[in-house]
Amino acid sequence: MAKAKKYRLAQIVERFGGEIIGNPQTPISQVATLENAAAQHIAFLTHGKYRKQLAGTRAGAVILGKADSDLTQLPRIVCDDPYLYFAKVSSLFNPQPMARPGVHRTAVVERGTRVPASANVGAGAYIGRGVKLGKGVVIGAGCYLGDAVEIGAASRLQARVTVYPGCRVGQRVLVHSGAVIGADGFGLALEGDAWRKIPQTGGVAIGDDVEIGANTCIDRGTLEDTVVEEGVKLDNLIQIGHNVRIGAHTAIAGCTGIAGSTRIGKHCMIGGAASIVGHLDIADHVVINAATVVTKSIRKAGTYSGHPAEDSRSWTRHVALLRHLDALHERLRSIEQRLSTREKKA
Amino acid sequence: MAKAKKYRLAQIVERFGGEIIGNPQTPISQVATLENAAAQHIAFLTHGKYRKQLAGTRAGAVILGKADSDLTQLPRIVCDDPYLYFAKVSSLFNPQPMARPGVHRTAVVERGTRVPASANVGAGAYIGRGVKLGKGVVIGAGCYLGDAVEIGAASRLQARVTVYPGCRVGQRVLVHSGAVIGADGFGLALEGDAWRKIPQTGGVAIGDDVEIGANTCIDRGTLEDTVVEEGVKLDNLIQIGHNVRIGAHTAIAGCTGIAGSTRIGKHCMIGGAASIVGHLDIADHVVINAATVVTKSIRKAGTYSGHPAEDSRSWTRHVALLRHLDALHERLRSIEQRLSTREKKA
Amino acid sequence: MAKAKKYRLAQIVERFGGEIIGNPQTPISQVATLENAAAQHIAFLTHGKYRKQLAGTRAGAVILGKADSDLTQLPRIVCDDPYLYFAKVSSLFNPQPMARPGVHRTAVVERGTRVPASANVGAGAYIGRGVKLGKGVVIGAGCYLGDAVEIGAASRLQARVTVYPGCRVGQRVLVHSGAVIGADGFGLALEGDAWRKIPQTGGVAIGDDVEIGANTCIDRGTLEDTVVEEGVKLDNLIQIGHNVRIGAHTAIAGCTGIAGSTRIGKHCMIGGAASIVGHLDIADHVVINAATVVTKSIRKAGTYSGHPAEDSRSWTRHVALLRHLDALHERLRSIEQRLSTREKKA
Repeated sequence: MAKAKKYRLAQIVERFGGEIIGNPQTPISQVATLENAAAQHIAFLTHGKYRKQLAGTRAGAVILGKADSDLTQLPRIVCDDPYLYFAKVSSLFNPQPMARPGVHRTAVVERGTRVPASANVGAGAYIGRGVKLGKGVVIGAGCYLGDAVEIGAASRLQARVTVYPGCRVGQRVLVHSGAVIGADGFGLALEGDAWRKIPQTGGVAIGDDVEIGANTCIDRGTLEDTVVEEGVKLDNLIQIGHNVRIGAHTAIAGCTGIAGSTRIGKHCMIGGAASIVGHLDIADHVVINAATVVTKSIRKAGTYSGHPAEDSRSWTRHVALLRHLDALHERLRSIEQRLSTREKKA
Repeated sequence: MAKAKKYRLAQIVERFGGEIIGNPQTPISQVATLENAAAQHIAFLTHGKYRKQLAGTRAGAVILGKADSDLTQLPRIVCDDPYLYFAKVSSLFNPQPMARPGVHRTAVVERGTRVPASANVGAGAYIGRGVKLGKGVVIGAGCYLGDAVEIGAASRLQARVTVYPGCRVGQRVLVHSGAVIGADGFGLALEGDAWRKIPQTGGVAIGDDVEIGANTCIDRGTLEDTVVEEGVKLDNLIQIGHNVRIGAHTAIAGCTGIAGSTRIGKHCMIGGAASIVGHLDIADHVVINAATVVTKSIRKAGTYSGHPAEDSRSWTRHVALLRHLDALHERLRSIEQRLSTREKKA
Repeated sequence: MAKAKKYRLAQIVERFGGEIIGNPQTPISQVATLENAAAQHIAFLTHGKYRKQLAGTRAGAVILGKADSDLTQLPRIVCDDPYLYFAKVSSLFNPQPMARPGVHRTAVVERGTRVPASANVGAGAYIGRGVKLGKGVVIGAGCYLGDAVEIGAASRLQARVTVYPGCRVGQRVLVHSGAVIGADGFGLALEGDAWRKIPQTGGVAIGDDVEIGANTCIDRGTLEDTVVEEGVKLDNLIQIGHNVRIGAHTAIAGCTGIAGSTRIGKHCMIGGAASIVGHLDIADHVVINAATVVTKSIRKAGTYSGHPAEDSRSWTRHVALLRHLDALHERLRSIEQRLSTREKKA
């Protein structure tokens, strides 16, 4: 994947800041792990536990934090946040591949839809009527865009994404294969013993700079839109129910489910396989750990865990107490014996 | 999405019952929420917590229950079950769009399959040999129907649904994008240290009036069919293992997994992200709350929660007790001190 | 599905071993369950709980273990492991259907890719540039193979599988519909208040004889490959994060999520809906029960359960203790009363 250009350390620091220790002319052509780097690579140290690998690395240069700057003699860039710095350097060496503009001969574009000259539409893609595509959009092979869909400029749908009619996607959005945007929400009313379907006439509104993982589903709203605000990052196999709103810059890891009408705040971090029931409010800056089951609204920023969710410290404490119940029983037995002894003596 | 016809309140009540208070000639052209309704809309009040919004609504009319009938001066329909009534009125204003009959020029229909004149087959859809399609079926763009599949009349497969060979789908069934019906069940036997695949030669039988959510998977049976009975409603990202049977009119929310050979009763309600292990029997009319882990058969109707599942009241009680273990330790400490005091005095 | 050949019991035993009791010339044309078998079928008894069905079966012959060999008068094959034996016999009667070689006229194969004469490429499939396909591969209808993908000989991708560029799949691999191999891992760095994407430039390497379930996702690595070793079996709707390694012959049931950089040992069995957080090490021969939440590395073979995971026996004990906390409170109350009585008397 690497026809990357070469950059010298000095050029990298010119772009992204940080301080060079060692030869600023060291040429770099790619990023790599400490373990597998070669002379033309720049590696990085972010976790203490990889310090041992630093000693043995064959990297040409290393990115690390100030506290670690003396741990190697290699040419290095010292910076505040080596992980973020690595992200930037990796983007420099691995730019998103450009898709050549054009509509594949096997794609179907219905009447009333104009594909911008700068856009790419892949093989077998289907684009319905009255669809609005921004400049430079990439619609992958086998994608389905229903009527009146809108996709903002520079957004990219990987192969085999489905967008139901009327849903709107912002700019610079990346959607991975198998994702389904705008299927019907799970809206049912009991009529006697059977279920009657409630029409789902709302849409889905996806903000700018959102990423949506493979096979993730975002249901359309019942009457109004399901909303994913700008900068939200969704991993794979996530379920977002109808009328949910996800606040800006919230990140949600894979296999998480969020039931209908729940509102998640901005800047939240939600671990994998979390379950959040419907009609809740989650405040801004809330962290929900993996596999947490949230059954009540969370009004305060903080870190939450457990089934059902509680403050993470409490959960840790309660798990520890649960695991010491045997000892507690033992204490109880001992007390009962001492008490019996007292009673007999009296 | 709304080129809906207008109806007067009197016409609505004529169809669906209920009592009008206020002007029966009030014209209505769509349903809306209390918060966002305008004069041409009918809104509805189902939850007490939306009463505040009733005061400020600009709706032309409101649907509400008898207990709430005096809470507004707007023209209104008073009925027993406002949520169900809303469902009916919404269906009136939002009929399922009709698909024009015809087979898209890019669809592939193999020999031995006849597409009824009333059916619609979308762009890029693939239909194998000996497939039986009922009247008025809609096969969305990019769908795959293996050989000998059967789809009953008036059923609709949204874009990009997969149905493996030999699976049978009833009438008026709605399947959402990305759903996979009839993939191999997870049948393996250990042969020494490695796994040997067991051929999955059963099929899948889906009853009438079933709805299947986006990216949901229903595996084919090992020797006999996996069965989803009539009226079952499955949300998104659900896994139904091989040889499972889901009883009629059961509703299952998203991210739930049901392992092989388990039988779920009729009229059950299963919350999101529930896990039900294999080879169990779940009785009729069982309610399983979100994220519940069911490890044993449930023989009695009731509501179940927790990990592992138990009666919901017990689970709530046990969670509360767990959270008061610190207090219990405190009591224990106090007892031990009092006892020591006694012992010293004696 | 059955145009299967007939075999006599003697021929079956010649292939797979075991001992015949009864007429070795009994002709068999298919496998079936005890309950539904007819005279031309061979059924099998693997679980004690099906013994009652043995009495009533109309099967022509039965496969069973030595301990059960006298439970029927029917012609029978007695063997060490009836379940494995059944798997073999079922494979004999139900060989994988052969796909006729050829490239469907609606498939797209880009320049620089050669499809072997023995391969089958289905309708609407898309195969990018520089893809390497082994002999006898089957690429189902609507599949997407990005540039430089490699698929080993005799592997089969069912309809609508996605393989991102550069990913490598071994020989005799079976991938079910909707699976997505090689989407970007969930790699993000915080830059102020917003997320910056980390390019995911590693790939995915799938070993020989792997099976991947419907709608399962395996993310590409950040810098190096995500690895699924030979003989691994993955059920449906599983999420494998970036840089994960799954050891050979491990089986994972549906709805399980494994977060980034975790390493799973060889010969593990992981139940459905398990959650394993990132950066952990799981030893070989570990069994993780359904819905278990693994938050720490597991260094020792054994069986684990619970939330958070612990040794299964401990989990069972702790659940039991939790459910007896009411009794414990009762004991405490009684002690306090007795103590008060003592104190008053003193």
